[in-house]
Amino acid sequence: MSDRHFVKYTFLKVDPAWRRLDAAERAQHKREFLAACEDFGADHLLQSFSLVGTRGDVDLMLVAESENLDRIHEFHVVLGQSGLMKWAAQPYSFLGLRKGSEYSDEQRLVPRAFRGRYLFVYPFVKTRAWYALDAKERWRIMQDHIAVGREYPQVDNHTTYSFGLDDQEFVVAFDTDDAGAFLDLVQRLRTTEASAWTLRDTPSFTCLRVSAERALGALDGEPVPALDPLAS
Amino acid sequence: MSDRHFVKYTFLKVDPAWRRLDAAERAQHKREFLAACEDFGADHLLQSFSLVGTRGDVDLMLVAESENLDRIHEFHVVLGQSGLMKWAAQPYSFLGLRKGSEYSDEQRLVPRAFRGRYLFVYPFVKTRAWYALDAKERWRIMQDHIAVGREYPQVDNHTTYSFGLDDQEFVVAFDTDDAGAFLDLVQRLRTTEASAWTLRDTPSFTCLRVSAERALGALDGEPVPALDPLAS
Amino acid sequence: MSDRHFVKYTFLKVDPAWRRLDAAERAQHKREFLAACEDFGADHLLQSFSLVGTRGDVDLMLVAESENLDRIHEFHVVLGQSGLMKWAAQPYSFLGLRKGSEYSDEQRLVPRAFRGRYLFVYPFVKTRAWYALDAKERWRIMQDHIAVGREYPQVDNHTTYSFGLDDQEFVVAFDTDDAGAFLDLVQRLRTTEASAWTLRDTPSFTCLRVSAERALGALDGEPVPALDPLAS
Amino acid sequence: MSDRHFVKYTFLKVDPAWRRLDAAERAQHKREFLAACEDFGADHLLQSFSLVGTRGDVDLMLVAESENLDRIHEFHVVLGQSGLMKWAAQPYSFLGLRKGSEYSDEQRLVPRAFRGRYLFVYPFVKTRAWYALDAKERWRIMQDHIAVGREYPQVDNHTTYSFGLDDQEFVVAFDTDDAGAFLDLVQRLRTTEASAWTLRDTPSFTCLRVSAERALGALDGEPVPALDPLAS
Amino acid sequence: MSDRHFVKYTFLKVDPAWRRLDAAERAQHKREFLAACEDFGADHLLQSFSLVGTRGDVDLMLVAESENLDRIHEFHVVLGQSGLMKWAAQPYSFLGLRKGSEYSDEQRLVPRAFRGRYLFVYPFVKTRAWYALDAKERWRIMQDHIAVGREYPQVDNHTTYSFGLDDQEFVVAFDTDDAGAFLDLVQRLRTTEASAWTLRDTPSFTCLRVSAERALGALDGEPVPALDPLAS
Repeated sequence: MSDRHFVKYTFLKVDPAWRRLDAAERAQHKREFLAACEDFGADHLLQSFSLVGTRGDVDLMLVAESENLDRIHEFHVVLGQSGLMKWAAQPYSFLGLRKGSEYSDEQRLVPRAFRGRYLFVYPFVKTRAWYALDAKERWRIMQDHIAVGREYPQVDNHTTYSFGLDDQEFVVAFDTDDAGAFLDLVQRLRTTEASAWTLRDTPSFTCLRVSAERALGALDGEPVPALDPLAS
Repeated sequence: MSDRHFVKYTFLKVDPAWRRLDAAERAQHKREFLAACEDFGADHLLQSFSLVGTRGDVDLMLVAESENLDRIHEFHVVLGQSGLMKWAAQPYSFLGLRKGSEYSDEQRLVPRAFRGRYLFVYPFVKTRAWYALDAKERWRIMQDHIAVGREYPQVDNHTTYSFGLDDQEFVVAFDTDDAGAFLDLVQRLRTTEASAWTLRDTPSFTCLRVSAERALGALDGEPVPALDPLAS
Repeated sequence: MSDRHFVKYTFLKVDPAWRRLDAAERAQHKREFLAACEDFGADHLLQSFSLVGTRGDVDLMLVAESENLDRIHEFHVVLGQSGLMKWAAQPYSFLGLRKGSEYSDEQRLVPRAFRGRYLFVYPFVKTRAWYALDAKERWRIMQDHIAVGREYPQVDNHTTYSFGLDDQEFVVAFDTDDAGAFLDLVQRLRTTEASAWTLRDTPSFTCLRVSAERALGALDGEPVPALDPLAS
Repeated sequence: MSDRHFVKYTFLKVDPAWRRLDAAERAQHKREFLAACEDFGADHLLQSFSLVGTRGDVDLMLVAESENLDRIHEFHVVLGQSGLMKWAAQPYSFLGLRKGSEYSDEQRLVPRAFRGRYLFVYPFVKTRAWYALDAKERWRIMQDHIAVGREYPQVDNHTTYSFGLDDQEFVVAFDTDDAGAFLDLVQRLRTTEASAWTLRDTPSFTCLRVSAERALGALDGEPVPALDPLAS
Repeated sequence: MSDRHFVKYTFLKVDPAWRRLDAAERAQHKREFLAACEDFGADHLLQSFSLVGTRGDVDLMLVAESENLDRIHEFHVVLGQSGLMKWAAQPYSFLGLRKGSEYSDEQRLVPRAFRGRYLFVYPFVKTRAWYALDAKERWRIMQDHIAVGREYPQVDNHTTYSFGLDDQEFVVAFDTDDAGAFLDLVQRLRTTEASAWTLRDTPSFTCLRVSAERALGALDGEPVPALDPLAS
């Protein structure tokens, strides 16, 4: 089991005071942040998202995938050295592990990037009564839930597991190009039998998939000036 | 379904320290904020509200409507460049999508401005037990609820959907010129059968519909000086 | 119904850093706050309370009553221009409307000042199951509750309604000269049938009724120096 | 009933930035705080506790007892003038009133100091279902609870009442020299019938009873230099 | 019982502004923190953990074990004198006491260091209904829970007791070299009968066991320079 990958969602909110710094300093802070991302991204899956305009409490989110916790730790140490992180708080953070589902044959162990323009992510906890059900009964209930999901092929699920590692049981993530279809799917799923066993599925984050450069640019409306070796 | 519009409620609280800045700086900050609003408002629905005096945790609220998430994102990027946003937090934020109701023939897909002097808005979540009811039973229960609403024709409903996009299921909004009538309506609705299936309907915001200029002026008691091309 | 009055409870916490300012600046800040109060108070009911020593999260509370929301908004705009509000947060805020009770003949529509030395105020929400009861059954249950209240004639009730306007259903307020009698009354009321239908009745604030000058003086232990036209 | 005493628990957290001030300024701030304590303590019960090392959100706690609310208010006004309070927040605050128990003959009306080395204090709320029980039934259930308490004579109970005055119904406080015995008692009490009717009994504070000088010294590791007239 | 040891979990979050200080000042702050740890660690169990990259709200965690509360208090007083603590908040803090389990023969009274590379810790509260069960019934239910744990011998449990001392009943801690195995164990335990009686088991912290030097170095990406007498 040692080859299962960890997936880390890091949500950042930049202190409004950061935008009062002069432009050169902000540009330098963003270049340092970008350099940390490019370093980790050279041999790991790393994706960037902007939440400017969709949430009030988060500006930027990173999803980092790694073969172990130490590499994720190391990435965040390097990230923390960037000027931007000296002005940023992490209002949310989700740590998950890839693991196969007992209810589906879907392959979830292989690292897989988000491809849709939009990512929707939320922490998920089921009631304890759910776990007291017989495994066959849980399997039966989940089939209808999964069938509804399959009616929306443009919406792709990327669930990871957090039992004991973090405050939720699952990190549920969906990507799609069609945000309206995702909303329709979630509303449909409310009426499945499985829905009754949900204890918590908030906060729910609508994220725009963009390059790290664009996510950084959205913080102060200015593009990230190129570093020589990192020019995009 | 691609033509459904997104409706974004952005609640702002200005740092008390902002009011300690000198008047010319504050005036400039407000002009920049206003310019961002006027830019977006040129071809989109954008309305401004003041909460000074009705809430302690919000000063100003914007409702922006757009054909897609990217345009709402872009608006907030531009807004974030204004001086005012360098001193503002967003304590609440609601993202909704227009969608027709399964319980009513009311047309809700077309962008429609708030016209009343007062806007009342709150996030809304129903219990999971509600969704386990048969669709016909839900329809029956909602008819009485809707009928009570129709007894208050001076109160106009503008509900949008948030399933999966944000922490609530619906953003419920009512506008009216008669705040007392709205209170009477809400109290009446408590005794309908539908009321029992409410899980959460707070926080609830009383908002005064005003021009962006007036909402900005209420922050420090001073009018927004005109920018040449934007003089009101 | 247009003549029902709004009652606004505004709770303030002054940043500890404000007390580090020099005495002359603090005196000026308090004079400006007082001037705003005196202006509104000239033709509206406005009362001041100190919570220094009874709560940790509030220092001063104002109750302002007005014929409409716009006048309350305007008062808070003017208040916000005072130096003190440039250092104050509003950790709590309750907006209520006067309305007659369906369970009591008591006259509650006329503006009525608090006269006791102490004011106790809390937001109040009943369970939804309460509202599913028959109106006669609710009336029956409330009679016992009201009868217990009448055994404490030294405690005077001032309830206003917040349905849809704010996060609670009611703002419950009692004034008395005898804080111990109020505690005894609240403990007695726990055993009435009505008590079982309470969903929320906290936070609960113990407030000392004092002049605005005294409430301001309690913030830094120094009296408010007289402004010529406002000398008390 | 006018001679029942109020008991105020004031929990303080000092801004970490305070420890960055120079030593002379900190010493002066602590002397001023101490002077306010000594002034009130001259004719009232006042006890000091340190929570450094037992909680992360509180550094120091004071318990002040007085014949009325006004004297407690006045003490906090004077305390607020000390330099230390210009850098302190009050994350918790409990206001209680002495009152005899309906379940015990224990005398609780007389002011009584804590004598143990450790104080454990928490706010306490019972379920509403408890209060719907018949008074005799409640009395019966409490007898077993009280009997378990008597098996731990080294642990002394000091409960006061907060109905309507503050967010809890009771402020429960125990002092002892044997923290382990207190833990054993609380674990034992979980299995009494009374325990089932508890709605809330957190946060729970472990406090070390020390002199005000020692509690102040623990804030920055330096003793409080003597003021001439107040030298201890 | 006086020889039971207290175990204190102290979680620290360093103000992002600290990383803006110059490198020499940060190095000095870290040396002072390290000196306090080495002083306490000379004759007590003290272990350090980094949470950089696994949580957003904590950077570093210490577990300190002592024969009494006073020694833990004293350690935190000394720690508080370090420069680092002048820029750190303690967002979480758990105080526990070693005590034998009534359900297991496992020896838990003796101080025992964490040996795994990863530590998982969370506060734990059971429902009151659990405590109303007969002791034999509770014993029976726990045996299955314990048996599942034994299937994961690479995961080691270190539970301490907090009844009345802190906000939780237990501080549950597990160390292991295999984070995935721990996740699998926690997921397995959801389906045991005992699981249904859990009231709260969050927040859950994933901690990397490292030397104090490394945990401090992770804060700003720079190693802790040696102090002469403390050179490692």
